[in-house]
Amino acid sequence: MDSSEFRECAMATIDLIIDYLENIRNRNVLPSVEPGYLMKMLPEDAPEEPENWKTVLKDFNETVMPGITNWHSPQFHAYYPTGSSYASIIGSLLSDGIGVIGLTWMASPACTELEVITMNWLGKLLGLPEEFLNCSAGPGGGIIQGSASEATLVALLAAKDKMIRKLKQIDPDLNEDVAKAKLVAYTSDQCNSSVEKAGVLGSIKMRLLKSDQNGKLRGETLKRAFEEDTAQGLIPCYVVANLGTTGICSFDPLNELGPICQKYNAWLHVDAAYAGVAFICPEYRYLMKGVEYADSFDVNAHKWLLVNFDCSAMWVKDGYDLINAFDVQRIYLEDVNATVQIPDYRHWQMSLGRRFRSLKLWTVLKVHGAEGLRSYIRNQISLVQHFAKLVDSDERFIVEPEPCMGLACFRFRGGDKITKELLKSLTEKKKVFMVGCTYRSRYVIRFVICSRFTTKEDIETSWNIIKEEADQVCPTNISAKSQSISTLDHLETLTINEKSK
Amino acid sequence: MDSSEFRECAMATIDLIIDYLENIRNRNVLPSVEPGYLMKMLPEDAPEEPENWKTVLKDFNETVMPGITNWHSPQFHAYYPTGSSYASIIGSLLSDGIGVIGLTWMASPACTELEVITMNWLGKLLGLPEEFLNCSAGPGGGIIQGSASEATLVALLAAKDKMIRKLKQIDPDLNEDVAKAKLVAYTSDQCNSSVEKAGVLGSIKMRLLKSDQNGKLRGETLKRAFEEDTAQGLIPCYVVANLGTTGICSFDPLNELGPICQKYNAWLHVDAAYAGVAFICPEYRYLMKGVEYADSFDVNAHKWLLVNFDCSAMWVKDGYDLINAFDVQRIYLEDVNATVQIPDYRHWQMSLGRRFRSLKLWTVLKVHGAEGLRSYIRNQISLVQHFAKLVDSDERFIVEPEPCMGLACFRFRGGDKITKELLKSLTEKKKVFMVGCTYRSRYVIRFVICSRFTTKEDIETSWNIIKEEADQVCPTNISAKSQSISTLDHLETLTINEKSK
Repeated sequence: MDSSEFRECAMATIDLIIDYLENIRNRNVLPSVEPGYLMKMLPEDAPEEPENWKTVLKDFNETVMPGITNWHSPQFHAYYPTGSSYASIIGSLLSDGIGVIGLTWMASPACTELEVITMNWLGKLLGLPEEFLNCSAGPGGGIIQGSASEATLVALLAAKDKMIRKLKQIDPDLNEDVAKAKLVAYTSDQCNSSVEKAGVLGSIKMRLLKSDQNGKLRGETLKRAFEEDTAQGLIPCYVVANLGTTGICSFDPLNELGPICQKYNAWLHVDAAYAGVAFICPEYRYLMKGVEYADSFDVNAHKWLLVNFDCSAMWVKDGYDLINAFDVQRIYLEDVNATVQIPDYRHWQMSLGRRFRSLKLWTVLKVHGAEGLRSYIRNQISLVQHFAKLVDSDERFIVEPEPCMGLACFRFRGGDKITKELLKSLTEKKKVFMVGCTYRSRYVIRFVICSRFTTKEDIETSWNIIKEEADQVCPTNISAKSQSISTLDHLETLTINEKSK
Repeated sequence: MDSSEFRECAMATIDLIIDYLENIRNRNVLPSVEPGYLMKMLPEDAPEEPENWKTVLKDFNETVMPGITNWHSPQFHAYYPTGSSYASIIGSLLSDGIGVIGLTWMASPACTELEVITMNWLGKLLGLPEEFLNCSAGPGGGIIQGSASEATLVALLAAKDKMIRKLKQIDPDLNEDVAKAKLVAYTSDQCNSSVEKAGVLGSIKMRLLKSDQNGKLRGETLKRAFEEDTAQGLIPCYVVANLGTTGICSFDPLNELGPICQKYNAWLHVDAAYAGVAFICPEYRYLMKGVEYADSFDVNAHKWLLVNFDCSAMWVKDGYDLINAFDVQRIYLEDVNATVQIPDYRHWQMSLGRRFRSLKLWTVLKVHGAEGLRSYIRNQISLVQHFAKLVDSDERFIVEPEPCMGLACFRFRGGDKITKELLKSLTEKKKVFMVGCTYRSRYVIRFVICSRFTTKEDIETSWNIIKEEADQVCPTNISAKSQSISTLDHLETLTINEKSK
């Protein structure tokens, strides 16, 4: 493919993308394919001879496209959003076109420096304490990781290393292996699977502590766990607090957890993968009260900030904690230019190689501007409020817990069985995509505003599809019968709620 | 940015990329900026108001571009290549445009299935044993990881988990922590820094065993290390063999290492990050003789196969080894469609989220065709042979070891000091970029064919720049004087070489 074919092909690809995104409402959110569909369509071997780009795009449309789940459809309400915007695609295109690897500063100065700068920009927009910023006097700073999973594991490994070094200072004869086996990590039972996995990968016992009735890990619970473990000779090492849990978007109180971590010298990592982006709006910062206790903080710009995956923004208070844990030198990687202000990012992450990912963060921040991004977040939150009102107006349903950020959960008053049935039929019809979770031992359906294209009308479309299916699963007369049960349920819930206060 | 602005901006970006790549010879390979240059040019805060895309591209050209190290310049001979091609940029653009996340099969069937298919295609092109392929009857298969570092760590963690499970079968009362502390990993002292780092990250002692005079880890050496360690009650668990070391591109003999690993039930991982791509040409497959002993095999399609970073192709003989090590379930990730033939790739990797990376592998394989890729590799190898001849014709220099794949190493006969001086002055002049390494305790300069644009004329340009600088550092008369020394050196080297046989 020469440059003129590339130009032609790129133009056709851009048109394909625009056509796909701008007309995404014409597609079902879920594809109609069976497992193995593509194996049946594509040859068993790579082509021997080069193919024309027109064949490639044709094959893409005819074979790949039918197997796409449309994450940017306004009827995609599953998981959490994955970021996408025209600005981000441009940033990514620039990164691929220039095609550098940021092994060291010298391997591409702009790659290192733009990451420092954009991470300072974003950190300030979020209202993070200055200590986390590279532009502060101290050793703090930001880095782009590939995912929140990666950030959680990076922080965990740094925490282990730091704790072992601390213990060795106290006792130089310490048996490291024995000490490592005593380290314990903690998070809530509401954590994302990646937090639990970080414990598995990082060879550390990860205790999933019981959250309260509102899905929050409370200070009392953490304190008790620390006390139990230290009484048994174990060593609290690492705590992951969740700001915006995956299930119901609950927020752990950092101002309760922080002082306890500080007292025990345990590393406090904040996983704000989805909801953290909302802190660009000052009115939501109360939800991160106590963030000054954290050692590391992570938010996925690739979830709710219009940046395409992957761009997980992580800040640490002390970059040396990462460097001490990860630095492995080689003669061919010598670079005399590294300082904490101009970091050698390979020592801040697990892999050696790294893409020029800050370009897409940069293009998004510039093209949308801080004000544009704040409006975007506020609008998405208002949309979910609108949805919650619609659900609430239908006496068959109950919305709980309170909608938070871009998420509302709801269920039939009539119980788990029909709620599950509703979700199953909706998924089979492929017009709306949601997933379930449990809240206070009940099955609820999660409804998340995911697409950046979503309007009030789209919400009403989704709601109408849901309601229509609900009419099949739970006609009004059944609902009336079950309402008496649900009133009791509701009372019981309130009682438990009162108790937990 | 609406769709019409996006179209305009994307066209301008495509033109910018074409202009950059097609005229890359007009630029110095290394940029002329000082550390901190970009911090001085860019504002301290993100813009409040949205900026026009023309401003963004203007800023890119004026501020980012001056700080780029030009990896695709034909005068870039440092490290190893990073893949880039127009076909790959199209694949990446499609991936960003569609913007799906492959959490589960259902989260985008095509994302999972195209990865299975393209990894089968590539595995067959490389001539890997069928057991590694997903299309075989067994539990093997391929997955795209982000980097060779990641693949090495993934395999290490799976190896640890597998060994502990095996030990627990023998002794159900086994203390896991005690057992884990006894596990040992092995590689050669020529390994990439990422292999050593995998040991650090995976909390396992990684022994860097002495390679022979040719930079190979020999079976005898591994056997001795296993015997020493088992005699001390330690447990050999994981071995990383290098096919194409970073320093001098040496190949560990898998047919020597394999049977020893098999005897001790240790996991054999093959790191063929750079050179493995050459196995698409059958004439190089003798270098992976014994690959049937391997448990996992990794090659970076993003290095030498024209695919943009990141696309590290990893195969395992038994996918369950990964699933057993990494599976952490959640209700919102339920997917009834997963089988080993249609894998849930999140259990084959460290992170939960994943991009649609197989698209770029697919576009590259289709646009270039297997035959096109083989010609590409063969041509790059012939170019380095040409370079070696040029160096060889200059009596001041010695080429050693023998050039291998796209790498030639050379040094002044006059000794390390002037060789280092030459590299330093060349780097300062910014017209050719190479890095150094050590070979048989001597400092050598590595010269790698990195850019896909490189022609015979480009090689001559690079050589002329080097020779011109050499005339400053080591005029011919000094060289003549030092030649007598170097003849001795050479004899000594030969002697050692003979001994090591």
